[in-house]
Amino acid sequence: MTRSYIAGVGLIPIGDHWSKSIVDLAAEASIEAISSAGVKKPELVVVGNMFSSLSSSQEHLGPLVTNAVGLTGTPAFKVEDACASGAAALSAANAFIKSGQVRSALVVGVEKMRDLEPGEVTRALSMAESYEYTQFVGVSFVALNAMLARLYLENYEVSRDELSAFPVLAHKNSANAKHAQFRKPITPEDVVRSPMISDPLRLLDCSPIGDGAAALVLVDEGAASDVKGGLVEVSASSSATNRFSAYEREDMLDLAATRSATEKALAAAGVSKSSVDLIEVHDAFSVVAALSVEAMGFSKRGEGCRDAYAGVYSREGKHPALTFGGLKGRGHPVGATGIYQAAEASLQLTGKAEQNQIEGAETALVQNIGGVDTCAYIHVLKAKK
Amino acid sequence: MTRSYIAGVGLIPIGDHWSKSIVDLAAEASIEAISSAGVKKPELVVVGNMFSSLSSSQEHLGPLVTNAVGLTGTPAFKVEDACASGAAALSAANAFIKSGQVRSALVVGVEKMRDLEPGEVTRALSMAESYEYTQFVGVSFVALNAMLARLYLENYEVSRDELSAFPVLAHKNSANAKHAQFRKPITPEDVVRSPMISDPLRLLDCSPIGDGAAALVLVDEGAASDVKGGLVEVSASSSATNRFSAYEREDMLDLAATRSATEKALAAAGVSKSSVDLIEVHDAFSVVAALSVEAMGFSKRGEGCRDAYAGVYSREGKHPALTFGGLKGRGHPVGATGIYQAAEASLQLTGKAEQNQIEGAETALVQNIGGVDTCAYIHVLKAKK
Repeated sequence: MTRSYIAGVGLIPIGDHWSKSIVDLAAEASIEAISSAGVKKPELVVVGNMFSSLSSSQEHLGPLVTNAVGLTGTPAFKVEDACASGAAALSAANAFIKSGQVRSALVVGVEKMRDLEPGEVTRALSMAESYEYTQFVGVSFVALNAMLARLYLENYEVSRDELSAFPVLAHKNSANAKHAQFRKPITPEDVVRSPMISDPLRLLDCSPIGDGAAALVLVDEGAASDVKGGLVEVSASSSATNRFSAYEREDMLDLAATRSATEKALAAAGVSKSSVDLIEVHDAFSVVAALSVEAMGFSKRGEGCRDAYAGVYSREGKHPALTFGGLKGRGHPVGATGIYQAAEASLQLTGKAEQNQIEGAETALVQNIGGVDTCAYIHVLKAKK
Repeated sequence: MTRSYIAGVGLIPIGDHWSKSIVDLAAEASIEAISSAGVKKPELVVVGNMFSSLSSSQEHLGPLVTNAVGLTGTPAFKVEDACASGAAALSAANAFIKSGQVRSALVVGVEKMRDLEPGEVTRALSMAESYEYTQFVGVSFVALNAMLARLYLENYEVSRDELSAFPVLAHKNSANAKHAQFRKPITPEDVVRSPMISDPLRLLDCSPIGDGAAALVLVDEGAASDVKGGLVEVSASSSATNRFSAYEREDMLDLAATRSATEKALAAAGVSKSSVDLIEVHDAFSVVAALSVEAMGFSKRGEGCRDAYAGVYSREGKHPALTFGGLKGRGHPVGATGIYQAAEASLQLTGKAEQNQIEGAETALVQNIGGVDTCAYIHVLKAKK
């Protein structure tokens, strides 16, 4: 089985792209990735996207993006796995490389969210949850996460300021990230003063709504020798599912899919947690960041927020996380997020992270989840020496 | 690279399933496939679907179906490629098997169409075409195909009865197919008397609207030894894209993606056209059936309909096609179609096609397209001896 490498990345600044269509955004990120990799003709195009049907009355994004970037003829399809659509697309493209069927692939994640009214975005995101059981009774996605947050705060006696630690960290890191939606730091006071969205989650506990696209070019061992820039190996690509909805689980605060995928990925890559230099975490909500680092084994149960508050996940800390601001600071254009994360980790591992650089970073763990840990993808990325 | 085999199939009768949700349908087909394969725990679930968002306010079908069939924990995602979503899902699952990352996979295609009003179905199908250029000016999917049909009839001086040959053949074959939407033959007179949908295409030139789900279980060489029933090798899985919309192409009547994918697939499988025993063709519209057999090289340009009229594609003919009725007779629940086709070919190659059996069939070619040949998938399936 060939090794698989990330050879180039493309990142569109996340925000309001009123004048660009979903295809424009995906094409822009793709062209940047192709150009940075120096791979002229990727042999496969995989698009990660969740709800182009609702945002843009558009499916068939695979061939549409392929044509837009001048790759007419190339096989192309779209992958969807709710908020993990990006990582799922990466995982699928990686499988094609590993199978030997293609030598290179373009993977692009894209989401257009700002064309929808806020209520429509809520409905679109709710499609990650069961229509028959969860959407039907009017539970929004933020409400589900708020239930977890309430339970978390009560079970573990976590303070408001401790819960704010991940959003504060995220904004600190996104302040310097060129492609981030929010380029200013926030304080715990800002979080407390922000509007209540779904008690106890406030606006600044929640990742924002934005348009964005990110792309990667993958190559196999043979094609890797032609690549001029740094290479990052996709050392493991593992995923798992959980019981579909959080309320069906014996222990709602155990992100079992993340836990299982992490264990599989570390074993597959032959990497121990102590040798991981940075982690990109799916911090869609402050509480999810905490539950994620706990499920991944970097914090003990109930200690995620407190560890973040103590600086464990800061850039200078023991386990640097959200190095470009995560979903909260960089932004969370749903189907694009998994690709933003992998692209950011690639920048770190090739020494191109500029002001956000984690010095000497060689190994990254990247977590992207769909729903409330309904599915979880863990990628282990390693700098090629 | 391991070989990949179809070890079991599940087929839901296509029709009006008012009392079943999209998840119910997918689960029913999946359980049948798992049971027929005797593989208890497929290691991956891939769902092919085009527009569950519009039909069922539901995304995240991968984990949803996975949980519904009792496979909680198993990695799962959805693949979309318009009307070729089924074949695209098969292709992705096949890549995971070939990569050695999983030993078995469940692939299920599903579409719920009848819950939508007819106008809404038209809109949902139109998402296969560009929103900005094609949908925007009000061109429906059937209208696009009607333009091809008009050009085809005029260029090649094809008669109305010749154009009707594929629908008549399809219904003849679907009459005996248990899972088919239409179980009665039609005559050329029926086609002429049916209502005009988009001149020159009449109702009986067009594949119908229906709910359905079909599933396959794939296994690698190691897992294949545990399978009791017959095995069918996925000998090649090739795909290609065309210029996005038909009107952008130099020659609108050349299905270049189908042609290219066929050439790649035959080469990859080491199979010549003359050794193909049956072909499953994407006959979404009568004219598309003709253009498909021409692009696949079984008829000369402009001769597809006339060959069908002369019996070339009948069960006793030189190139048996649409052996269970194709999209026109068996039905076309969009995201499920590619899996129905592969499942039907598997039944043929394992001698389980009952009244529709092509005697001694060993090799099948299966074509599934998205849009008007915007993307095309060709699978070469071979009976394992």
